Amino acid sequence: MKLLEKTCRDIFPQDSEMRAAAKARLDQLALPHWALGDLMDLAIELAGMTRSMSPSFKRKAVVTMAGDHGVVAEGVSKFPQEVTPQMVANFVNGGAGINALARQVGAEVLVVDMGVNSDLSALSAAGKIIDKKVGPGTNNIARGPAMSIAAARRAVEAGIEVAQSLREYDLLGTGDMGIGNTTPSSAIAAVLTGRPVEEVTGRGTGLNDEQYRRKINVLEQILQVNRPDPSNGLEVLAAIGGFEIGGIAGLIIGAAAQRQPVLVDGLISTAGALIAYRIEPFVRDYIICAHRSVEPGHKYMQEMLGWPRPLLDLNLRLGEGTGAALAMNIVEAARAVLVDIATFAEAAVAQADK
Amino acid sequence: MKLLEKTCRDIFPQDSEMRAAAKARLDQLALPHWALGDLMDLAIELAGMTRSMSPSFKRKAVVTMAGDHGVVAEGVSKFPQEVTPQMVANFVNGGAGINALARQVGAEVLVVDMGVNSDLSALSAAGKIIDKKVGPGTNNIARGPAMSIAAARRAVEAGIEVAQSLREYDLLGTGDMGIGNTTPSSAIAAVLTGRPVEEVTGRGTGLNDEQYRRKINVLEQILQVNRPDPSNGLEVLAAIGGFEIGGIAGLIIGAAAQRQPVLVDGLISTAGALIAYRIEPFVRDYIICAHRSVEPGHKYMQEMLGWPRPLLDLNLRLGEGTGAALAMNIVEAARAVLVDIATFAEAAVAQADK
Repeated sequence: MKLLEKTCRDIFPQDSEMRAAAKARLDQLALPHWALGDLMDLAIELAGMTRSMSPSFKRKAVVTMAGDHGVVAEGVSKFPQEVTPQMVANFVNGGAGINALARQVGAEVLVVDMGVNSDLSALSAAGKIIDKKVGPGTNNIARGPAMSIAAARRAVEAGIEVAQSLREYDLLGTGDMGIGNTTPSSAIAAVLTGRPVEEVTGRGTGLNDEQYRRKINVLEQILQVNRPDPSNGLEVLAAIGGFEIGGIAGLIIGAAAQRQPVLVDGLISTAGALIAYRIEPFVRDYIICAHRSVEPGHKYMQEMLGWPRPLLDLNLRLGEGTGAALAMNIVEAARAVLVDIATFAEAAVAQADK
Repeated sequence: MKLLEKTCRDIFPQDSEMRAAAKARLDQLALPHWALGDLMDLAIELAGMTRSMSPSFKRKAVVTMAGDHGVVAEGVSKFPQEVTPQMVANFVNGGAGINALARQVGAEVLVVDMGVNSDLSALSAAGKIIDKKVGPGTNNIARGPAMSIAAARRAVEAGIEVAQSLREYDLLGTGDMGIGNTTPSSAIAAVLTGRPVEEVTGRGTGLNDEQYRRKINVLEQILQVNRPDPSNGLEVLAAIGGFEIGGIAGLIIGAAAQRQPVLVDGLISTAGALIAYRIEPFVRDYIICAHRSVEPGHKYMQEMLGWPRPLLDLNLRLGEGTGAALAMNIVEAARAVLVDIATFAEAAVAQADK
C-alpha cells in the first residue's frame, strides 16, 4: 500500500468519550454556564483530538510550504516570482512575519521547498530548509494542468513525510509562500465549493480594479481549460493546484493520522485543507481554522470544513502561517480553560438557580 | 486640586509623530501592503500610546474590581449575592477563569474590593486583595440612586490610586466581579448611547425568557427613577452605576495619565470605560477594546469608544477580565509586528509593482 493510503487508514474520528468527559467538566466550571463560549467549544475539540483531558501544547511548529506557479505568466500577482526564494531566505534569517509571530507564541518555523523555481540546495544542505521539491514550479494552469497525477501524489506524500518527522510536536500550524498562489487557491475554492469565480476571488496581495478583473478572467479560463472531478482531491490538485498546496494537504493528513491538532492558516492553507478533506473526510476532526482571511472565498471554504466562525478575524491576508501562529495562543487559552479552572465544587461557589 | 481633576490634567492624546514613525516603518515591511491588517493598526496605537517604536509588554496585570449591587433584590440575576465574595476567594486561590487565562499570557491578577457586601478584611490584611471598599454594595437603583456623588468620586479616585500603584506595569487589563452588575452596565449603556433598553440588554449570566422580560422591566424602571445628565460621567455613575464600575473608570483614567495601554474587557468594563470617557474624552487614546461580548449593548458602547471591531469575538460573557487577558496575546503580537519584522530593504526582497 502506498504512503497516502496507508496514512489515511490511520485517521479516526475524535474520541467521543473524551469529548463527553471534557464537556462534563466544562459544564461544572465555577462560572455562568458556557460563559467562555468558543474557548469551551475548542477545549472539547482538543480533548477529542488528543484523547486527553490535560493536553499539552508545549512543542509547537508552523510548517511553511513554498512553491512557485506558472500562472504568474498571466499577470495575476503584483510581485515578481523571484520574491518566492527571497522570502524563503527571509524565513531562514528570521525576519519575516511568520518568524515574528511564531516567536511570540513559542513555536518553531519549518520551511519546506515543495517546488520553488530556484535552486535552494545550499539552504537545504545547510539544514535551513526541508527539501521536498517536486518540480521547479507548476505549469501555467490557464493553459493546462498544474502537474501530473503522479506529481500531485508526490506533493501530498511529501507533506505526510514532513508530518511524520514532527511526530513529537503537540500542535502544528500550516503556512505557505508562493507568488501567485491565491489564483490556484481561488480556483480550488470555486471547484470544491461549487461557487462562481467572482464570489470566491479577492485581490490577493493588493490588485487594483483592472488587475482584479484580469484575475477573474484568468480564473474563468483556468476552469474552462481544466475540468477536474470535484470529488477527487488528487485530480483537483493535479489540475489546478500547487506543490505547496499539495504539501499542506499532506501535512494535514499526516497530522490527523498522528492525532495532532493542526491550525489551518489563510486562503492557500485552506485550499490545501479542502484537498485533504476530499482525499480523506475524517481529517476534518483534526483541523482548527485559525482565522478569517480578507479573501472572500475563505468563508465558504471554512464552512465546508465545519468552521463557520474561525478563531480570529483580524483582516489578515499574509499567509506564511501567520494566522495559524497567532491562533496558537487561543489554543493554549482553551487548554487553560479545560485544565486550570476550578469547578463549583472545587471552588466552593454557589451555583445558579435552575 | 482633587486627585481626579489632577489626573485628568495629565492625560494627553497619543503622540502623532510616533504614530507616523510607526506607520512609516510598517509601510516598508517585507509583506504585501498592510497584509497583517488589524495587527498593524494596533501597532500604530501602541506606538502612539507608549511614545515608543519598541514598546515592551513584559509586565502585565489584570485588575479585577469587585462590588455588590442592591438591584439584585429585583431578581435580575440567577446567582445569589454570596457568589461575589466566593468568587473573590476563588480569584485569590487562583482557580477562576481569569487566573487561568492570565497565567497563560504571563499576567498577574490583582483583585480589588471596591464594595463587596461582605467582610473581606482578612483577605486584605493578608495582602491577598486591595481594599478600596467604598461601601457594602450599592443601593437598589430600581428605587433610587446607586450612591452619592461623593461616593462616586471616591470609587473613581480609588481606581486612580490602584493605577498609580501599577505605574511600572507595561500593559493593564480591566476586569469585574459583582453579581447583578450587567443591570447597571446595561443602564449605563442605554443612558450613554441613547439607545432603548431592549437594544442594549442581554441575558447576563443566562436568564430565561421570563427572567429576561423582568430584567427589561427593571431597567425601564431604573431609567424612570434615575434621570442622570448623560454628559456628566460622575452623575451617571452615582445614579445607576456600581462601585466596581467606578473603580474601572478610575483605573482607565489613571492608566491614560501614565500613558499605559489598557485593555478593556466585556460589558461591565466597557460601562466603566464609557464613564471614564465622559469624565475625560482623551482616555479613549489609551483604550483597547479586547473583545465583543455576547451582550447586545456592547457593540454600541465599543463604537462610542472608537472600536467598532474589537480584537476578539469568541462569544465570551464571563467578565473577570478574561477577554482582556486573552487579548494581551494580540497586543504582544502587534508589538512583534512593529519590532521584529524586516523591511523590504533589510530583507533584500523585491517590492510590488506600483
